[in-house]
Amino acid sequence: MQTFKFSKMHGAGNDYIYVNCFKEKVENINETAKAVSDRHFGIGSDGLVLICPSDVADFRMDMYNSDGSQAEMCGNATRCVGKYVYDRGLTDKTQITLETLAGIKILDLNVKDGEVQTVRVNMGSPELVPKNIPIDSNLDRFISEDVEVDGKVYKVTGVSMGNPHAVTFIDDTDSLEIEKIGPKFETHKLFPKKINTEFAQIVDRNTIKMRVWERGAGETLACGTGACATMVAANLNGLVDDEADLVLLGGTLHIKWDKNENKVYMTGPAKFVFDGTITI
Amino acid sequence: MQTFKFSKMHGAGNDYIYVNCFKEKVENINETAKAVSDRHFGIGSDGLVLICPSDVADFRMDMYNSDGSQAEMCGNATRCVGKYVYDRGLTDKTQITLETLAGIKILDLNVKDGEVQTVRVNMGSPELVPKNIPIDSNLDRFISEDVEVDGKVYKVTGVSMGNPHAVTFIDDTDSLEIEKIGPKFETHKLFPKKINTEFAQIVDRNTIKMRVWERGAGETLACGTGACATMVAANLNGLVDDEADLVLLGGTLHIKWDKNENKVYMTGPAKFVFDGTITI
Repeated sequence: MQTFKFSKMHGAGNDYIYVNCFKEKVENINETAKAVSDRHFGIGSDGLVLICPSDVADFRMDMYNSDGSQAEMCGNATRCVGKYVYDRGLTDKTQITLETLAGIKILDLNVKDGEVQTVRVNMGSPELVPKNIPIDSNLDRFISEDVEVDGKVYKVTGVSMGNPHAVTFIDDTDSLEIEKIGPKFETHKLFPKKINTEFAQIVDRNTIKMRVWERGAGETLACGTGACATMVAANLNGLVDDEADLVLLGGTLHIKWDKNENKVYMTGPAKFVFDGTITI
Repeated sequence: MQTFKFSKMHGAGNDYIYVNCFKEKVENINETAKAVSDRHFGIGSDGLVLICPSDVADFRMDMYNSDGSQAEMCGNATRCVGKYVYDRGLTDKTQITLETLAGIKILDLNVKDGEVQTVRVNMGSPELVPKNIPIDSNLDRFISEDVEVDGKVYKVTGVSMGNPHAVTFIDDTDSLEIEKIGPKFETHKLFPKKINTEFAQIVDRNTIKMRVWERGAGETLACGTGACATMVAANLNGLVDDEADLVLLGGTLHIKWDKNENKVYMTGPAKFVFDGTITI
């Protein structure tokens, strides 16, 4: 039996349980992450995030999926960590370095009335070479290539943001039967490690609506790397300039592809939902 | 904006947010119930239960579904109210009367080491006349009648416990493709107000495994009235005596059909998961 305090937070609907490990201690982490993530018997979340001291950055994020396995990184969760450490007085800095299993991430906090409103995260550089995404193709780039899925031809652009994405532009995301077509993309023979698929609709040159089918998870409310990949793909196809609002089911993310640095920046919301104490 | 303290509890996996309205106040209840029930943006639950003073019983349960609509009664939730009021010191009685929209319910608390372990609820009398369940049949009782569903004949027993149930006994609940067959029962022409369907497997004369397909909700972890209906149906079919353990996905309920009183008693667990505070 252990007792710890926690906060439930979400970033564009991607919800995790956050624990301040400067004060609290969580034991049997994998097992605990799985138990607390259960949406009927536990607190309910996409996973557990421990906010810890770091030797190499301002803070360290130790993150676990809802199945108890350790996770590398999640853009939506890093924004919540940024809001947590500032709003709860763990720092007064508005630029924070955060140690993750995917390297040190830099967070820029947009503060108003003493509270973090949005957080900008440097999501790194897009990878466009098909064999590195990976896509089973000898092309130099995989941009608007014809791919036949379930008897229909889609124009697909491939981008890795550390994980593989296939982006396809369609006329209407609302009427999309994503449960039918998503799994066919996911397991298509072109993608040796399966694929996350973004179905995107260009609203105007500043706005893209999108829905995401994630590998192994199905449709999700928001996918930070998927939004970044979609922005990069839209730019490569000449559909938008170097930044746009990406409207996902769970919220809106502003994505900018800085082509000088070749870095993708994601700015989005982070919210506290409630604070609690659990004995488990 | 309002702030209130709450407890998350579950009874056999049926989870609600409980608020002690002797101390706390919840405003815009329907809207608040919907918001807090959301499993990504809110606390996450099957609904909201307010524990209130009563003029006619020890306590009153004011209950809301996750869509914000008011709910009549839920056996799993009444057990949690029983545990809440005793464990949190609102009463020291071990038999409690609880006012609900479905009448006054009597709860018997099984206390050990100062905490409620299980709660017994009088779930009322089963209704067996088909037209009152309702089932579109002129029979006096609907017991082990042949019903063709999706090209296969099932032996079906009809029972109402305030809501309609079709119970069918099968060899193996684990391998059942309930997502395929459940909706076919639900919308079968025999059932003018649709139907909750219990697929039950007799393990021995004291134990029944079951899975439930609920009207409008799909498969759920536990259904108190469904467990009662299954016990009644199993007895009517000569498969068990007057009490048994009903093993559901979310936990085990002990059901007794007292034939002298013609009342069904459900005994089952109730658990605190965590306490929290939300501003909404």
